[in-house]
Amino acid sequence: MLPIPSDAALDALKAAAGNWSDDPATLAPHLVDWRGKVRGNSPLLLMPATTAAVAAIVRAAAAYRVALVPQGGNTGLVGGGIPDAGGGAVLVSLARLNRIRAVDAAGLTLTAEAGVILSTVHDAALAEGCVFPLSLAAKGSATIGGLVSTNAGGVQVLRHGTMRALVAGIEAVLPDGSILDQITGLAKDNSGYDIKQLLIGGEGTLGIVTAAALRLVPAPPHRAVAWAGVEGPHAALALLARLRRASGGQVESFELIPAAGVDLVVQHIADRRAPLSSPHRWHVLIELAGAATLDAVLEAALGEAAAAGEIEDAVIAQSSAQAAALWRIREELPEAERRDGPSLHHDIAVAVAALPGFAEAATARVEADFAWARVLAFGHLGDGNLHFNVRPPADSDAAAWVASHGAAVTGLVFDLVTAAGGSISAEHGIGSIKRADLARLGDPAKLAAMRAVKSALDPLGIMNPGKVV
Amino acid sequence: MLPIPSDAALDALKAAAGNWSDDPATLAPHLVDWRGKVRGNSPLLLMPATTAAVAAIVRAAAAYRVALVPQGGNTGLVGGGIPDAGGGAVLVSLARLNRIRAVDAAGLTLTAEAGVILSTVHDAALAEGCVFPLSLAAKGSATIGGLVSTNAGGVQVLRHGTMRALVAGIEAVLPDGSILDQITGLAKDNSGYDIKQLLIGGEGTLGIVTAAALRLVPAPPHRAVAWAGVEGPHAALALLARLRRASGGQVESFELIPAAGVDLVVQHIADRRAPLSSPHRWHVLIELAGAATLDAVLEAALGEAAAAGEIEDAVIAQSSAQAAALWRIREELPEAERRDGPSLHHDIAVAVAALPGFAEAATARVEADFAWARVLAFGHLGDGNLHFNVRPPADSDAAAWVASHGAAVTGLVFDLVTAAGGSISAEHGIGSIKRADLARLGDPAKLAAMRAVKSALDPLGIMNPGKVV
Repeated sequence: MLPIPSDAALDALKAAAGNWSDDPATLAPHLVDWRGKVRGNSPLLLMPATTAAVAAIVRAAAAYRVALVPQGGNTGLVGGGIPDAGGGAVLVSLARLNRIRAVDAAGLTLTAEAGVILSTVHDAALAEGCVFPLSLAAKGSATIGGLVSTNAGGVQVLRHGTMRALVAGIEAVLPDGSILDQITGLAKDNSGYDIKQLLIGGEGTLGIVTAAALRLVPAPPHRAVAWAGVEGPHAALALLARLRRASGGQVESFELIPAAGVDLVVQHIADRRAPLSSPHRWHVLIELAGAATLDAVLEAALGEAAAAGEIEDAVIAQSSAQAAALWRIREELPEAERRDGPSLHHDIAVAVAALPGFAEAATARVEADFAWARVLAFGHLGDGNLHFNVRPPADSDAAAWVASHGAAVTGLVFDLVTAAGGSISAEHGIGSIKRADLARLGDPAKLAAMRAVKSALDPLGIMNPGKVV
Repeated sequence: MLPIPSDAALDALKAAAGNWSDDPATLAPHLVDWRGKVRGNSPLLLMPATTAAVAAIVRAAAAYRVALVPQGGNTGLVGGGIPDAGGGAVLVSLARLNRIRAVDAAGLTLTAEAGVILSTVHDAALAEGCVFPLSLAAKGSATIGGLVSTNAGGVQVLRHGTMRALVAGIEAVLPDGSILDQITGLAKDNSGYDIKQLLIGGEGTLGIVTAAALRLVPAPPHRAVAWAGVEGPHAALALLARLRRASGGQVESFELIPAAGVDLVVQHIADRRAPLSSPHRWHVLIELAGAATLDAVLEAALGEAAAAGEIEDAVIAQSSAQAAALWRIREELPEAERRDGPSLHHDIAVAVAALPGFAEAATARVEADFAWARVLAFGHLGDGNLHFNVRPPADSDAAAWVASHGAAVTGLVFDLVTAAGGSISAEHGIGSIKRADLARLGDPAKLAAMRAVKSALDPLGIMNPGKVV
């Protein structure tokens, strides 16, 4: 348990921040994650507006040995931005660091402070004829600092990579209060260890990201979108390889969805219907981005895929409205699943080529060990990333089933993915929720190196304690 | 000065390695870099053939406090693979770790041990219809371990990134002898700090890379290559933006070359002629890779660029032989420059959009401060990466000029690039040659974090001492 900060410590932190609140009503929404699964306590919320103020806060925290918990848009899924229940840690919201410092269309970079919301970045890039090619459901709330600190993913990772690939530069306050100034976006820089890589995905445990230089791409002249019915994940992977080859690497999204996923959307969301008239065991949603000639490339490749038996049927969107309608099926799947009742969610990854086999074997094993449980596995096939969700038996008391079997199901899924050389957290991070799982299942050499790095950079243990490591 | 290892220590290292030599003739080529600029001494060369043997070597080195210097193809440019002159460090060649463990065309990854030569990787990928999109002049000698450890670049970084972007997984022996097993190539993995990022570009000071899972891309159906004459770097940057937009991000290379660079090749290499009949102050070499329709995309975009005044003249290669002839001009430039006589080389980077202005201002400043010196700046415009070379005055005693002015010229160039927020080492690394420059010019917060990480992971200081940090 962290000690409760003294009045002198709290006064020093308030003075350093400039803006702060200790009003319980103001703090309340910052003390619970948006799904309501993780709750904590804190005596103080700091709201600095400049990098210098963040540095002053960290120096004061170091002087008084007070733990800090950085928080962005509070859209995390593993409790990384929520303090523990003891009330010893002080919250640092980066929301007021909300300037876009520069948009550079020639150099294809955009420099944004930590509190800038993702959709604001999208708009600013588009105004200059560019795209920031990372998007996710929480784009209206998630902030750049949080996206960097969690190495966020999304549906375009296949082509553009995760946040790590899209961060050209970083500004951060390290646990000793020094400012790491690596904000100039350099495409190449081999002058020493790339320390910013530790802040990316560090979940605020090695410092506080205050700004990032993000890579942009030119807005593509055209997007070609299609939906196909396939026999299974193996066929889908062959189709993906064909499309990547035919397009010269312009496949931007390739989402795999089982029949049960489409059924859930049709059942729970008003005015939705299946994109294909015939039934298929599995579906894929495809998006290519590039020159206007891509429609022809896509049509020819799908024709060849049909001849090769990789797809059973397909439809190409003839307008952006049709494309949006296809995307809605994928985007509304999590909400349809939620409306259907409680289920267990697992954000896992294996090697891409291993994914079809893993999906089959893990589904069979879970459905064998837990009678009548229903696996719903969907997601980013080209990233080897599945949302491997497990639904309670139909007609069961879903909440009771989850309460009694949840830990065992999750333990089995994590064991299976670890045995397959995969990751127990593909996108969401470790935070507080998966910390014990990582300690149990992580590579021992990696865990030892993580602990050594944490102790070296944060010897006082003041940066987001109780998270990750 | 490192202590000379005891006989007991050397015996333990030999037993751990299995293969070794202490024959001076065998060691000799490993004790000098290929340019003959850095020379060192060592009592022993270890040649392990397995990861387990490397781990045993490191454990023995830790037990006896013996420093190790890992070496790959010995093609480095900053002395990173050469021991110091004292003779206290033991060389570890990774050349016998030379298996390609797997080529996975579906998942687009290739897993190679540290000693595999880059051109071997190229061939193995191509045999499966794929490309490993990183290449450089030393591809016939450079090894995967060295390329990972130096975060190598090359001429395709514009589209595919440096080695860091192309490493999906890593296997390495850490300084305590433990094996970091992150070799499964996962496109997404947010399970804790990404420790492998420290090994990438770590220049062997934080551990020894023993294998890497590399990302491949499908072999593009077509490559479109052109050469254009432009007024200057500003026009070239506008042309690059136009081509990236028109092609939907399929520009793979974009090399900027001044007239003096083309002249050097024509003068010193037999049977070469300028690609364009008219004279131009600057030239660009362009390559797009993707669908067969790219020739038309390139022709249309160059037509629009001419109308907009971005280019003065251009030629599109009509065959792969013509494309190769254009590429030879660029590839032979360093050799032509070498034949012309001694000069000073600087491998620097600034933000892409800042590069045209920097090139102009820095050239003017160097040529003003050092009378009749001739700047020859060429390279990867889209990466913000210039080979900013400075040639002695014509008709001077070149060697004497370099000897008397070299340190001052390099100091000025490094000061100018640092003031511009750039990097004193874009591609080549720090090694021993640039270590003092980095200590003088590096961001203090970054340097402090580097030292803390080094001490944390290598508390005995046995991994490649005297390099980087």
